[in-house]
Amino acid sequence: MPQYSLLSREEKENELELLRKQYKTICNMNLSLDMSRGRPCRDQAAFAMDMLNCLTPEDMILADGSDVRNYGIPAGILSARKLMGGILGLDPTEVYICGSSSLNIMFDLVSHAYLHGVYGSNEPWRASEHPKFLCPVPGYDRHFAITEYFGIYMINIPILEDGPDMDMVENYVNNDPDVKGIWCIPKYSNPTGVTYSDEVVRRLAALKPAADNFRIFWDNSYVVHDLYGDDKDELANIMDLCKEYGSEDMVYEFTSTSKMTFAGGGLAALGASRHNIDYISKQFAVESIGWNKLNMLMHVKFLKDNETIAALMRKHAAVLRPKFKAVEEILEAEVSDIAQWKNPKGGYFISFNVMDGCATRVYNLCKDAGVKLTPVGATYPYGHDPHDSNIRIAPTSPSLDDLTQATALLCLCTKIATLEKLLTDGEAEEV
Amino acid sequence: MPQYSLLSREEKENELELLRKQYKTICNMNLSLDMSRGRPCRDQAAFAMDMLNCLTPEDMILADGSDVRNYGIPAGILSARKLMGGILGLDPTEVYICGSSSLNIMFDLVSHAYLHGVYGSNEPWRASEHPKFLCPVPGYDRHFAITEYFGIYMINIPILEDGPDMDMVENYVNNDPDVKGIWCIPKYSNPTGVTYSDEVVRRLAALKPAADNFRIFWDNSYVVHDLYGDDKDELANIMDLCKEYGSEDMVYEFTSTSKMTFAGGGLAALGASRHNIDYISKQFAVESIGWNKLNMLMHVKFLKDNETIAALMRKHAAVLRPKFKAVEEILEAEVSDIAQWKNPKGGYFISFNVMDGCATRVYNLCKDAGVKLTPVGATYPYGHDPHDSNIRIAPTSPSLDDLTQATALLCLCTKIATLEKLLTDGEAEEV
Repeated sequence: MPQYSLLSREEKENELELLRKQYKTICNMNLSLDMSRGRPCRDQAAFAMDMLNCLTPEDMILADGSDVRNYGIPAGILSARKLMGGILGLDPTEVYICGSSSLNIMFDLVSHAYLHGVYGSNEPWRASEHPKFLCPVPGYDRHFAITEYFGIYMINIPILEDGPDMDMVENYVNNDPDVKGIWCIPKYSNPTGVTYSDEVVRRLAALKPAADNFRIFWDNSYVVHDLYGDDKDELANIMDLCKEYGSEDMVYEFTSTSKMTFAGGGLAALGASRHNIDYISKQFAVESIGWNKLNMLMHVKFLKDNETIAALMRKHAAVLRPKFKAVEEILEAEVSDIAQWKNPKGGYFISFNVMDGCATRVYNLCKDAGVKLTPVGATYPYGHDPHDSNIRIAPTSPSLDDLTQATALLCLCTKIATLEKLLTDGEAEEV
Repeated sequence: MPQYSLLSREEKENELELLRKQYKTICNMNLSLDMSRGRPCRDQAAFAMDMLNCLTPEDMILADGSDVRNYGIPAGILSARKLMGGILGLDPTEVYICGSSSLNIMFDLVSHAYLHGVYGSNEPWRASEHPKFLCPVPGYDRHFAITEYFGIYMINIPILEDGPDMDMVENYVNNDPDVKGIWCIPKYSNPTGVTYSDEVVRRLAALKPAADNFRIFWDNSYVVHDLYGDDKDELANIMDLCKEYGSEDMVYEFTSTSKMTFAGGGLAALGASRHNIDYISKQFAVESIGWNKLNMLMHVKFLKDNETIAALMRKHAAVLRPKFKAVEEILEAEVSDIAQWKNPKGGYFISFNVMDGCATRVYNLCKDAGVKLTPVGATYPYGHDPHDSNIRIAPTSPSLDDLTQATALLCLCTKIATLEKLLTDGEAEEV
């Protein structure tokens, strides 16, 4: 591939013409591919089929005599709290199980905090005229959608190599009482793949928020979602560090088994200090009599413990690894000079950065050729990428063939958009 | 049993002494019985065991190619919308399935309406300085807890023989723009057992609310929960009537299978106009990617259709009928002169009214003798029964033996409390 920046104007135009011909050929193939969604693929869903029929009549009555087929036990059955606590590195008493969607728990906690408040504070967030949230970017659109829904003003915090820019975070959190929270995906962050360093986690635990109702939303969705076995990122246990600083009430942790067992049909858990769990239990008691304990029990029997989970996750990794590698190899071969990305060691995404001002054009070119990407801007609050540069690649769901085809097109479109931009910028300079 | 009101003061005192001796004997038995909770019993939970292992690998892929083990289909799989629509008498497009708890959907809808508004209105409820809700009483404590949590002022509306006092309801709803909703359990109401008459349902459908964001919360929890086969109450289809009056956006319907399959592990559904469903789908999209479709599919395979459900409900009725009859026979034999109740044709409760000012005393006497009743006042907003008269009996969960013993004690305590009251009132008159 020629180095675009070294080409003359005429050479750029010739190259562009060549690429456009290739593009036209691909358009005529009427592709219909989707790289937009962080979904497990069908092969992965099959791994948990044994969970469906694992319950027997003998399982229905727990050791304490309670019947999982009846109301009650609002925080979840003990064995499920142990299971999810094991994943998060928390004591079972620091875990509350609800439903299948961790996003739903996050929404609920934002809602309760906004309207009614949090443990240890007399003020709900709405008492602030301009409640704010810190949003490490690029990040997860569904997080941003929640805070936007409540009219909470979102502030972009760049994600660096080792996590969010902590100088900025400390400056905001420790000085501005309107800052009520921060969205974090601390391991294999969506979409960057960044895992927060020990130093970053420690600085988060050491925050001294100006607001007494500040919370870290610690969305540990990819906690066991390693791709390369032992060659994995290690995340510090934020609750342990918080306990050193006496700040354990400041953190809400979340995880779910959506990408271990069944997406949308998994088990979702909140991890928090006992103070928080007690407080939230009272708030949640208004909205539910209790959550599906049969689903909890199914998960406990199937996932058993951390070792069994690790073995299951190795199966998932075996399916996903070739997909990530395929994308990364094509990107390396085709666009290493004109785009940047990180090869993550786990998670569900590759964060792909094209030349500033080109992402929307790349997205549209791909769309017109039949390849659907995550909408540009989705990885930023308010759907606005200030650099028009970030594209989230979701390699998990398509087949390897589809993925190869889609990534090749993505590269072609990246080249076209880059050349167009260089030519336009050149014109502007000439004028 | 002597007619208490005809007894002389001395006769009353002698009778009371006799009853207190009986009471002391029972206290020494160290009973520990619970008639407080509207739970199915263990025999009922067993009816749905076949549901647990009913899914096969072939079921996982739906006719449209989507995989129930993956994200998506936020409103629920079509077959589940059909199933729950069948129960409620609604078109599948008028049904949204979420999770297992209909109470949770109610909470969510109050929350969304309070903060963000409802279809067809520009104002969320919080825009009113004093949003209000009508609460037919006695009613369901968990309904009242939701509106109380949002600081919505609750107004008691007496439940008459055929439903809430519609003159009062019309007067409030049609004239006061602060009135945002009404809680209704239209069939076998908790706890009264009253089913709304066709005329009441029609008058509700014909309401012309002063508030453009008013909603009827139609909690049809006991829609198929008949006790005596064909000798059952018939409830008019409010949505059909609303369509006559063009008011179909005014109603949110709810039901769940908690008392058909597994309590807490069932399927919960919202029924509403297509306008409402579209609007709510957008609100719910912020809080979840979708609900547990495996649980939906299990329910569809097991419950199948209205006929299969009716057969299942006959099994439940066979277990529950003797319990209701036992309570009713003891009440009839023991306290028919000094208390009032209705023998319901379905549902989960018997609403028991003692002499004004006696319910708390009855509750405490029962408690001290080892029988737990639903706390007095729970059936009223703010936990306050203005007459101190209503006791909710929940006969479903205890065994027939326990129930017989507990009801006998309840009658004894009712007699004691009544005599005490008559004697005190008599003293007051003499002074």
